[in-house]
Amino acid sequence: MVLLGLGTRTRLLTTSPLFSARDLVGRPRWIAKVPSLSISSSTSTTSTTALSTCSALRRIPTLNNRTMSTTTTTASAVMTAYVTEQRGSLYGSDYLLYIKKAEDNVPVSPMHDIPLYHDEGQKIFNMVVEVPRWTNAKMEITLKEKLNPIKQDIKKGKLRYVANCFPHKGYIWNYGALPQTWEDPDHVDEATKCKGDGDPIDCCEIGQKVHKSGEVIQVKVLGTVALIDEGETDWKLLVIDITDPLAANLNDIEDIEKHMPGFLSATVEWFKIYKMPDGKPPNEFAFDAKPKNKDFALKIIDECNGQWKKLMARESAPEDLDRTCTQFDGSSKIGADSAKAVVEGAAAMAAAVPLESTVDKWHYVKL
Amino acid sequence: MVLLGLGTRTRLLTTSPLFSARDLVGRPRWIAKVPSLSISSSTSTTSTTALSTCSALRRIPTLNNRTMSTTTTTASAVMTAYVTEQRGSLYGSDYLLYIKKAEDNVPVSPMHDIPLYHDEGQKIFNMVVEVPRWTNAKMEITLKEKLNPIKQDIKKGKLRYVANCFPHKGYIWNYGALPQTWEDPDHVDEATKCKGDGDPIDCCEIGQKVHKSGEVIQVKVLGTVALIDEGETDWKLLVIDITDPLAANLNDIEDIEKHMPGFLSATVEWFKIYKMPDGKPPNEFAFDAKPKNKDFALKIIDECNGQWKKLMARESAPEDLDRTCTQFDGSSKIGADSAKAVVEGAAAMAAAVPLESTVDKWHYVKL
Repeated sequence: MVLLGLGTRTRLLTTSPLFSARDLVGRPRWIAKVPSLSISSSTSTTSTTALSTCSALRRIPTLNNRTMSTTTTTASAVMTAYVTEQRGSLYGSDYLLYIKKAEDNVPVSPMHDIPLYHDEGQKIFNMVVEVPRWTNAKMEITLKEKLNPIKQDIKKGKLRYVANCFPHKGYIWNYGALPQTWEDPDHVDEATKCKGDGDPIDCCEIGQKVHKSGEVIQVKVLGTVALIDEGETDWKLLVIDITDPLAANLNDIEDIEKHMPGFLSATVEWFKIYKMPDGKPPNEFAFDAKPKNKDFALKIIDECNGQWKKLMARESAPEDLDRTCTQFDGSSKIGADSAKAVVEGAAAMAAAVPLESTVDKWHYVKL
Repeated sequence: MVLLGLGTRTRLLTTSPLFSARDLVGRPRWIAKVPSLSISSSTSTTSTTALSTCSALRRIPTLNNRTMSTTTTTASAVMTAYVTEQRGSLYGSDYLLYIKKAEDNVPVSPMHDIPLYHDEGQKIFNMVVEVPRWTNAKMEITLKEKLNPIKQDIKKGKLRYVANCFPHKGYIWNYGALPQTWEDPDHVDEATKCKGDGDPIDCCEIGQKVHKSGEVIQVKVLGTVALIDEGETDWKLLVIDITDPLAANLNDIEDIEKHMPGFLSATVEWFKIYKMPDGKPPNEFAFDAKPKNKDFALKIIDECNGQWKKLMARESAPEDLDRTCTQFDGSSKIGADSAKAVVEGAAAMAAAVPLESTVDKWHYVKL
């Protein structure tokens, strides 16, 4: 699977369509400020990292000399670039995917260090991709480990794979989280009357590209559904990659049905049934499972950002939530060398653990 | 992608559950005669072949010393084992996947040499897998090339990928063909009143495993739908891998809905819409799109087997249909050395061509 990473990387590198003139002309103002998009590319010596990220090579015109000049003529160039470093074995219990700044290889916490906003005025957010579309391994930003690398969730001692519930194959979006957000488990949500689930807020990115685990992409928010998971509020934001061909047409929740008929109800169905093959009851939703619009979602994000700020301002962190970071100023900030030592201290990268063929099973769920 | 192949192979080798005692005890008589199942494993020096097949290692207890003894005690051991050899680049126009006998590496024609029946009395068929479930590249047994290797179809000068039509991801079954069958384009089908499409009969294998391109698996036939493709009859058989956990419960067309609710109508829908993203109208079906049962399907297979026999008995082959083979006795049979020279004459195996990210697009089709 180490080698698979290389194959995947090669594919991304060589299929990169750069911006055409039409791309730049036909976009709204915020996208014309292109250079501040983050890039994710693998520059480390462990460039065969499975799931290493370099998809932005496909869309950022700053990665070869010809197009660099176009970009650097713009005024507000703030290049934030992230790379990933895999430790341990993919599909192994020691797997950890760290995110680092490309410019200096300093590890960052995807929860605490990556800015929530890519462009606050235009409400463009950074999203950390955890699970690529059509895959099953439940990869997530772990709160327990220093620097919060991406790790495969373990339930009852077993690495977790989400079941394929017919007609769906794995996750039906690129699934991930917004950095610098937290659903405080001690805070009762005004809208749902339930407490938070103790995690960063989840995102379903509905664009046509399949993104890699660990990629940091820029998204517009379209709305949200309110999953109630064992009495806890678990917001699922609906977002779209701002570079998606449909992004200009998708601006609020009702636009999804216009351009992707059936997808929003499939999303609700997916969350309702996805734990049933594991013997659990259907999940429930607040608001009669009706998705809420963009403005509502933006308010929720703002609240979760506020709860994260309070978390970082506390004297001590809750149990099982590590606040170690390298960019966000606060009591838990550590230096570059200490952060690099954290990564070096993790298991050495190794070949992937073979996937059980049961992961490919299609389950038939009756509601 | 060469390297991806290696990763995939490793996965199959190391996750191989061999038959348990329960497997052997709980199965009907025909499956107890296990040794005549074919195996597909890569023994060639080019063992990193992408899409090379060795899944049977997971189920055939003849591949290590411990279990070999069990198997060789049975009377009717007829071991037919196939391996694959890739030439050219995966997703390249020079890609060819040859099938060879494992015992002596002699290439075979999957259309003319692999026996239609694995067990004629029990109506167990061999099926050649062309397209693994959830993938998009239109791989098919090519009639034009000597020995009929698997090749990616080319339409209008472009390598063909089947579009993802929401909610489906790629092909929703392991798709392939029955050897030693032919839908004669000069023969008007009694049932559909349409001529054949000039190909071996197509199969949709609905078991839970994802099989590899080039694998030869053993299947039970459950029924068929009659796609009418531009005025030609194009039977799509519904079959299941006899080693699938559900195989004992699936014996005729109506059993599919019982155990896999919604899957049969999804299958009809899939065939109806799958060419629409390419600008074509919906496909049509005979019999008001109602699937026909097992007995009907068996009759169709028998007819197509008869048409293939006539094809092989003709003085000359139709244009663009190569009858070269190594096992089936007839005028087009060639020797082992000549067959090996055919394979050696093809492009050397090379790295995969990067997949365009457009292959990942989800299309929304309105009927």
